[in-house]
Amino acid sequence: MASTTILFLFFCFFFLSLTTSTTATPPHPSPHNSNNNKQKPITLLSSGGFQIGGQKTINPLNSSETLTCDHAYVEYFFPARPRKLSFLLWHSSSTQLWQNRWDGGPGYKDLLLRRGYPVYLWDGPRVGRANWGCESYLYEPHFGIDELNFVNWNFGEKFKIWYDDGVQFPVDDEEAWIQATSARYAEFDVFENVKLQSEVMAKAVDQGKLGEEIVWVTSSAGGFRAQLAGTLVSKDKIKRVKGLIAYESFGYVFPDLKEVREEIGEIDEVEGFGPSFVLVERFKKFTEGLKFIQFVWGDHRSEDHEMVQMSKKCAEWINRFGGKAEVVMLREDAGLKGNTHLPFADLNNEEVLGLVEGVLRREGLDGFV
Amino acid sequence: MASTTILFLFFCFFFLSLTTSTTATPPHPSPHNSNNNKQKPITLLSSGGFQIGGQKTINPLNSSETLTCDHAYVEYFFPARPRKLSFLLWHSSSTQLWQNRWDGGPGYKDLLLRRGYPVYLWDGPRVGRANWGCESYLYEPHFGIDELNFVNWNFGEKFKIWYDDGVQFPVDDEEAWIQATSARYAEFDVFENVKLQSEVMAKAVDQGKLGEEIVWVTSSAGGFRAQLAGTLVSKDKIKRVKGLIAYESFGYVFPDLKEVREEIGEIDEVEGFGPSFVLVERFKKFTEGLKFIQFVWGDHRSEDHEMVQMSKKCAEWINRFGGKAEVVMLREDAGLKGNTHLPFADLNNEEVLGLVEGVLRREGLDGFV
Repeated sequence: MASTTILFLFFCFFFLSLTTSTTATPPHPSPHNSNNNKQKPITLLSSGGFQIGGQKTINPLNSSETLTCDHAYVEYFFPARPRKLSFLLWHSSSTQLWQNRWDGGPGYKDLLLRRGYPVYLWDGPRVGRANWGCESYLYEPHFGIDELNFVNWNFGEKFKIWYDDGVQFPVDDEEAWIQATSARYAEFDVFENVKLQSEVMAKAVDQGKLGEEIVWVTSSAGGFRAQLAGTLVSKDKIKRVKGLIAYESFGYVFPDLKEVREEIGEIDEVEGFGPSFVLVERFKKFTEGLKFIQFVWGDHRSEDHEMVQMSKKCAEWINRFGGKAEVVMLREDAGLKGNTHLPFADLNNEEVLGLVEGVLRREGLDGFV
Repeated sequence: MASTTILFLFFCFFFLSLTTSTTATPPHPSPHNSNNNKQKPITLLSSGGFQIGGQKTINPLNSSETLTCDHAYVEYFFPARPRKLSFLLWHSSSTQLWQNRWDGGPGYKDLLLRRGYPVYLWDGPRVGRANWGCESYLYEPHFGIDELNFVNWNFGEKFKIWYDDGVQFPVDDEEAWIQATSARYAEFDVFENVKLQSEVMAKAVDQGKLGEEIVWVTSSAGGFRAQLAGTLVSKDKIKRVKGLIAYESFGYVFPDLKEVREEIGEIDEVEGFGPSFVLVERFKKFTEGLKFIQFVWGDHRSEDHEMVQMSKKCAEWINRFGGKAEVVMLREDAGLKGNTHLPFADLNNEEVLGLVEGVLRREGLDGFV
């Protein structure tokens, strides 16, 4: 493969910089802050991390020189009294979004651990703590990302104009906003990297590194990667993946059929937001393998939104091919208001998680070992 | 600041690659592996993360476009019944080295949490999960790093020739080696970045984000950053840093005096391994502020090793300026054999940690809240 120069295909403007310091207090708890004591403790058997799915590359001019690279990095947390099902939390832009709520309160990680679910945090190949890649890349900072984050995360239609009917964010806390916008790290939204990340996840599942019963919970472009990974896991291993909860998935996978291509239109094989077409057999393996698939949308999402429409079409095709997919609009279908692009980090994230717990109960996936 | 092109100043060779897959089993525990149950559970109040010390950069051509960047990322773990002192674990190449032992067993993080110490894992600006930097950089993969890792981590003098009198590594486990060599991520060993990372740590301490009583535990080049950070923390806040345990520090900080410069020789202000000279007042603030400083060396380190010698000279100067520094050779001074460049990940890491616990007892720093 040729070496690639990547990053920020959206944001192609870059200028010299003026800097100002940020000095406010982050909304994070302290080790000795008694306010935290209101919550039930988390009891872990162990925690740690590992790399998975890398390659040993060999210098063709000198076979004694190698580099092991393009692995993913997994951080794990195992409760002392675990449930059978593990959660794989798959971000688009940052593991931090699973760590804490916008106000510094417990994120999905702690909420799930308190409930006894083993948790894996995933940095895909080249991302975050897995940035020891096999190819070169150029990182470039870009002005305007703060403002784009605000709009893309659906806090409001224009920068710092919060939705006036409520947002599940501590809107008066400037430091909470600084924490939110600085939580990101480079995410490599080109299709070549989407494929790489999906392939490595498929390896992780095939090799049993994420346990025997997993649910993938994804954010934004992570949902596209998860769908693709689902079509890449071996046929005899896909049953390990019990379900997919994709929050505001940007990118969808469809069966490669003439009528689907006509319905969906042509694809862009360079950008990282799909749609992508896969062989019918691969699509069926994915749809028949999982017990449930949910595409979940926060508040203030129009039915006309391109990705909302795509999620509905995708759910239809999944269901036509033996799957069990649904689209959930948090306001319209569940009565939750003010949710953002990242509902699992929102102030009402415990209510959002409650919906997931409902699905697990329904599917009989909430049992303890 | 001009944008910088960084990385791997050591390793300047890069060619086309041949790839082979690695398929062996990583030595990591599973959520339902009863072998893990032998260990005492870890009881946490909460865990999470935050960014600290970043900047809001403003487009000089359009002040409505900003980018918040160059923060560090901190992951925290707070025991339910905490001790007063927190551990800040500061890697050179990867937080994973604090997560697990080479054989997948408990690393310093879990060992410390079981003992009730709050733990912070630190990714400095531009590193790992804090790679949303304010400047551009080029990552380039380099063949030969696997082989260099083996030697630099002091597993043996030549690649895959393990020391024949013992190494605290599961030498027959190929997958443990693959895990070790793939654990790294880009570390930015140029002095400009050492300074940036040290400055942000100083901000984190000044702002009280790491608690009121901290010990810095560092690995390799992290030790250089910590020493420099110690000279940058505000005079009225340095007492928060109770001590520094620097494992195999590569890089030392000295007071800027004519006789010291004559003794140490000239410095390289580009590379990231020091030495560095700081104003006497800054040096004294650091040495007088901390209750203890230890420079710790693993096994198979000659007295003639440049960095071992430098650590002794540094300890002398620290002690001349009111500090309490010592150099600890794990074999010669503590009777521990076979330790590598990363003793906290070695098979006997609990014994290595025992030495730290001894220091804390001696200094009266092991109390509970």
